[in-house]
Amino acid sequence: MPITLPESARALIRSGALAHLVTLDPDGGPQVSTVWAGLDGDHIVTGHFGNYRKLRNLRRDPRIAISFAGAEPLPNGMHPNLVVYGTAEVTEGGAAELVGALARVYVAPDFEYQAPPGPPPGYVVRTTVERISGVGPWTAGS
Amino acid sequence: MPITLPESARALIRSGALAHLVTLDPDGGPQVSTVWAGLDGDHIVTGHFGNYRKLRNLRRDPRIAISFAGAEPLPNGMHPNLVVYGTAEVTEGGAAELVGALARVYVAPDFEYQAPPGPPPGYVVRTTVERISGVGPWTAGS
Repeated sequence: MPITLPESARALIRSGALAHLVTLDPDGGPQVSTVWAGLDGDHIVTGHFGNYRKLRNLRRDPRIAISFAGAEPLPNGMHPNLVVYGTAEVTEGGAAELVGALARVYVAPDFEYQAPPGPPPGYVVRTTVERISGVGPWTAGS
Repeated sequence: MPITLPESARALIRSGALAHLVTLDPDGGPQVSTVWAGLDGDHIVTGHFGNYRKLRNLRRDPRIAISFAGAEPLPNGMHPNLVVYGTAEVTEGGAAELVGALARVYVAPDFEYQAPPGPPPGYVVRTTVERISGVGPWTAGS
């Protein structure tokens, strides 16, 4: 069942925290890469210019995990961590617009991301969030 | 087959880059948490005070992925990323010593990590590296 992200989790995702995106390889093993991520309502969205392994994995098995770390450490020296679990849908197109918008969050408000020549339409991965875990205000009391 | 980590990858791990550690749940889905990680020869080692889900997962299926991001962005604004794939062995004991040593890397050279009361012997996860991927000098030319 989809869940609504707590505001603290939304704030972390919007802060430009790098997303460690996990998919499952054909043999069931984990596959990881880092990406920029944004919000579209309660969905997490990422943009991709190539038909990368993570996209091929998600079309076969839509289970996804996305892990973010907060920049400010907790009193014990460890960093807050938000892990989002859900299912992903891969659609064609929209990568340049999304990655361009995310570059203004992740790099600088006036950063002009140079999409690969072409540009190809690319792909958007849209994650429906079903569960969150980690250590931070988003899991307080859970 | 175990591989030898390139020196650039070793330097990133030693720099205090947070480790996003991925295991596989009983249903085959991904499970992620962030931890401090260090090197013991060519193995990656992490310390844990409780018999957490990730440890139970690794005893059942030793496949592991550990993802690190570099602090300094590349010219396109994205961050270097090292992903280590391998198999993990969980042994009992040694958590306090390892986590205490890692705290001096991850927090400050004089930081005294407060282990949970007890302290329990805890666990060490030792990862044998079989493959690396990502974007950075460790994958240049691959």
